[in-house]
Amino acid sequence: MIDLDPIVRSRFLPEDREIAASEGVTILDAAQANDIPVETVCSGKGSCGTCRVLIRETEPPLPNAHDRRRLSDQQLAHGWRLACQHPVAEDAVYTHPVGVRAVRVVESSGLGRIRLDPDVQKIYVKPADPTLHDQSADWSRIQDELAAVAGDLDPSLEALRRLAAIGEDIGQGITVVIAGNRIVSVEPGDTTERGFGLAFDIGTTTVVGALMNLVTGEEVAVASGLNGQHIYGGDVISRMSVTMRGPEWVGRLTQAVRSTIGDIIERCLDASGVDRHEVYELTFVGNTVMEHLLVGADPSRISYSPFVPTMVDPITATAAEVGLDVLPSASVWVSPNVASYVGGDIVGMMLSANLGRRRGNVLAIDVGTNGEIVLQKGRELFATAAPAGPAFEGAEISQGMRAAPGAIERVRIEDDAIEVDAIDNAEPVGICGSGLVDAVAELVRTGLVTPSGRLLWQEEAEQAVPAHADRIIPDKTGGAIVLYGSADDPDSAIKLHAQDIRQLQLAKGSIRCGVNVLMHHAGLTADDLDEVILAGAFGSYIDPAGAIAIGLVPDVGPEAIRAVGNAAGHGARMCLLSLTARVRAMDLPARVSYVELSAVPDFQDEFALAMGFPAPS
Amino acid sequence: MIDLDPIVRSRFLPEDREIAASEGVTILDAAQANDIPVETVCSGKGSCGTCRVLIRETEPPLPNAHDRRRLSDQQLAHGWRLACQHPVAEDAVYTHPVGVRAVRVVESSGLGRIRLDPDVQKIYVKPADPTLHDQSADWSRIQDELAAVAGDLDPSLEALRRLAAIGEDIGQGITVVIAGNRIVSVEPGDTTERGFGLAFDIGTTTVVGALMNLVTGEEVAVASGLNGQHIYGGDVISRMSVTMRGPEWVGRLTQAVRSTIGDIIERCLDASGVDRHEVYELTFVGNTVMEHLLVGADPSRISYSPFVPTMVDPITATAAEVGLDVLPSASVWVSPNVASYVGGDIVGMMLSANLGRRRGNVLAIDVGTNGEIVLQKGRELFATAAPAGPAFEGAEISQGMRAAPGAIERVRIEDDAIEVDAIDNAEPVGICGSGLVDAVAELVRTGLVTPSGRLLWQEEAEQAVPAHADRIIPDKTGGAIVLYGSADDPDSAIKLHAQDIRQLQLAKGSIRCGVNVLMHHAGLTADDLDEVILAGAFGSYIDPAGAIAIGLVPDVGPEAIRAVGNAAGHGARMCLLSLTARVRAMDLPARVSYVELSAVPDFQDEFALAMGFPAPS
Repeated sequence: MIDLDPIVRSRFLPEDREIAASEGVTILDAAQANDIPVETVCSGKGSCGTCRVLIRETEPPLPNAHDRRRLSDQQLAHGWRLACQHPVAEDAVYTHPVGVRAVRVVESSGLGRIRLDPDVQKIYVKPADPTLHDQSADWSRIQDELAAVAGDLDPSLEALRRLAAIGEDIGQGITVVIAGNRIVSVEPGDTTERGFGLAFDIGTTTVVGALMNLVTGEEVAVASGLNGQHIYGGDVISRMSVTMRGPEWVGRLTQAVRSTIGDIIERCLDASGVDRHEVYELTFVGNTVMEHLLVGADPSRISYSPFVPTMVDPITATAAEVGLDVLPSASVWVSPNVASYVGGDIVGMMLSANLGRRRGNVLAIDVGTNGEIVLQKGRELFATAAPAGPAFEGAEISQGMRAAPGAIERVRIEDDAIEVDAIDNAEPVGICGSGLVDAVAELVRTGLVTPSGRLLWQEEAEQAVPAHADRIIPDKTGGAIVLYGSADDPDSAIKLHAQDIRQLQLAKGSIRCGVNVLMHHAGLTADDLDEVILAGAFGSYIDPAGAIAIGLVPDVGPEAIRAVGNAAGHGARMCLLSLTARVRAMDLPARVSYVELSAVPDFQDEFALAMGFPAPS
Repeated sequence: MIDLDPIVRSRFLPEDREIAASEGVTILDAAQANDIPVETVCSGKGSCGTCRVLIRETEPPLPNAHDRRRLSDQQLAHGWRLACQHPVAEDAVYTHPVGVRAVRVVESSGLGRIRLDPDVQKIYVKPADPTLHDQSADWSRIQDELAAVAGDLDPSLEALRRLAAIGEDIGQGITVVIAGNRIVSVEPGDTTERGFGLAFDIGTTTVVGALMNLVTGEEVAVASGLNGQHIYGGDVISRMSVTMRGPEWVGRLTQAVRSTIGDIIERCLDASGVDRHEVYELTFVGNTVMEHLLVGADPSRISYSPFVPTMVDPITATAAEVGLDVLPSASVWVSPNVASYVGGDIVGMMLSANLGRRRGNVLAIDVGTNGEIVLQKGRELFATAAPAGPAFEGAEISQGMRAAPGAIERVRIEDDAIEVDAIDNAEPVGICGSGLVDAVAELVRTGLVTPSGRLLWQEEAEQAVPAHADRIIPDKTGGAIVLYGSADDPDSAIKLHAQDIRQLQLAKGSIRCGVNVLMHHAGLTADDLDEVILAGAFGSYIDPAGAIAIGLVPDVGPEAIRAVGNAAGHGARMCLLSLTARVRAMDLPARVSYVELSAVPDFQDEFALAMGFPAPS
């Protein structure tokens, strides 16, 4: 058999191996076919820049647009090119970055299998010793070594300070820590096997931070806390009414959330024994208002028409700029936002639910005070935001409470009794959001509440649902029904009032209205949906059947509904551990068509329609 | 007459003018020939990047190395190219940056005529108003406008915060402040006619700062103060002996100088009424140790063999990183150093003395505790450093003092009297460095001090210089001579001791030894020198004839010696006001051959030779 392709021979460093490849094959493919571990994140699309090689012994090819986008001017001038963009050349010598941690796929704490290719790289170099005849600066000698493996990069002041403090021990070798295109730190000796980052989900209510090992992908510690801004109101609207008082109030809200973040950082470091200067990068997702406040930007304009944020693009900064007490030069990456009310947390949700890349038609809802809704129709993405109010969190419900021990979370109306489950099997003391959904779903199913949302009068119930009629307590505001305890002792009973049902109707009506508008916009019906995803701390606790029963989501059957928990926080971790994921997150917002509900002409009619409950089947 | 060159027609925006040019002419030349004000700093060499144009209606040419070096990947992708690097193309439309302040030549406070082309640019843009149907972020809408005139630039957090604080007034238009490739601030309305910067010379003893108007090139305010590090010793060697006690001591020295700088900033702002947030850029020159301490880097390694600094390249940072209370995102530029003992102040001196660009052979000396010497031989530059000790500043001299009222600064030995001038014509109370040089020069000229540096004994003087013999007071350490007052009342007289003469010999011997080594290295003799420049606060006060008489400099004749004052500080101002000058400053260190005196084999012999005084003519 005759091989018609001419063979090209080239050499790869630092392996110092000569390989043979067919003419026209890319440098990357040639390397991979010969088990030379040239890294790639984007698998040869030219978009990630990790497959860069230094070309010697042959004229480097003219850089193309991908080279120019991913490599610096200095790198191009020195002969660095992307291995995936150029064919192997006869007699060429290719040097690829070493010491950079190899990309691998890991199972990471609840994220499933993800590609571990963090933005942070550590490279160990051993510079030449200085002499009276070569007094070149320490940094210059390190850069000489570094340029050969990573190209020319500028040191941060912090890196220079640390290098100066290391002094003579430079002779033992230095580990250079790179985040993005910046040298964020240097450490004495070879520390390439250690490195950490923090991933944060900044919720309006709760802030969650995870300390992640960037070498193994493992979660090292996790901590959460009530967002210190809570004293300024429970939702983003109240927070913005505070920022409108003046610039010093913006500062207070910014300080409040940074203090919460700082506290979480301390707890993660304490629990793990990790040094704060080993934290090289932090990623953040949050809604648009939280992200503005994180960086100290007044979000007020988001609160009034035409609802414009100051920025939606991803933000990169340093830990010092954001006032966080880790390595001052540590890289901070704040997720892009889609729009004023579809923020970085939703980008995180889309990322972790793989929206925009998976098959089929998928509806994803982050259920909370602000309901964010994303609809994937094939390759298209649509999003909107629906202000749901706090009912799903148990607030503004007469006996509502947060999901805490004693909160009723499940309700089942049997033929002759009402069964309730309280969190931790404690004595029921109130009702939380998931219990509220369950209770209303059961009341609708049994006919105690009409499809229009009205609680039957006692006389009506005696006709229609006689076993439970005595649970109804009449009053001037539409009555109440006892869920736990006795109607004879109404003060100690746990009751659901007609107004509570109304609150839930408003909340779910708002979200469902958003769902309907998006579905209509995309030309989809419930039958077209392959899956419905419920995200957010609250979304994870809703019973899928209940969600359908109250009409929160279209009737796709409970088996097509999936709760994914804190998808936003997962997104933040993915962006920390994987540059591939981060690049996808950055590409997502531009792919989303945002639909502003208040600009929909028949919005009031849609909302009224969405308020009703489905007729029980 | 027939024009053989085909004519190419193209259009320039924002002028919207069609021009005709000969084929092959560069875009820049075509524009300039037609009075289209495309800016250029480097006059078409492709090195400054200011002549960038956005090319439309024709395929932009492949970027060359100059394009790639000066333009970002995004700019290249959008079609920006350097106008000086490509020929005009038929039917092309070229948009050049507008709103950017035109470069002009100004007379600036003592700097002579300099090209005013600061790194800081201000551009006024008026973004489109948002609507419910275009809810794009404020920054995105500003960037849309900005991209057309300045290419894509990332905003600093500070710029985003300020933009958010401006809120609805964005509708009135925004001035974007650019320093380098960063957007450092935004301001409401059109503020393009205001802008300030600070230029600092960080001396071991004295820190001088000048607040400069970046629009007019004028000095707005100037202030100076004793370097707060003075409590840790008078010279860089003592400072480094402090930093070697431990990292917290590095921090103290850094804090000390920053506090001095901060005080100078406050005084400049107070005196001028300029707001601290209108200070967009700061430039710094200082010796290598001062520059290390400014950025918080331990300079200890500079103090012992092989005398290696941590960094010599120019440093860019933000005011916040350097702990200065102006606009936090203001750009900080710290001059490059040549070597451990030839720092950024000497780069500033070379810049303001135009070394490396002027004609001839020039010797330039910054006379101080550390003597820095630069020798220009045609296009070549050589430098060395000579530790002179503090004698030139009047220290370690028995009746020495700083140049303050009452300090003897001029001494003339007449036939029958010694005339002295004291600063401010005050009653003489001591002797400063320039008086010391003058006195010794006169003692050598009259023969009261031998070429080897010995003060005549009284008996010898009675033979050789009888008129002044009675001024000599014998003692066990070589005697003393009365300069002012009477030998009969030695306690109230101002005397010069034999040891003082010895101190001056050591100081001038050290510098002269450095001069001799450099001259020898370059193959030059005194006759080859066209000019000798004396810089530094002290250098400016030395009488040129005295400098020759004591042998501090080769005998080139007093008329060839020029005192240039604080040349380092001038260099800092030039780098602030002129990007052209800054680029030259950055290019200088690589052009300088540094000669390490302690590595010169016959250094001790050279030093001994340089100690002697020239025989009086």
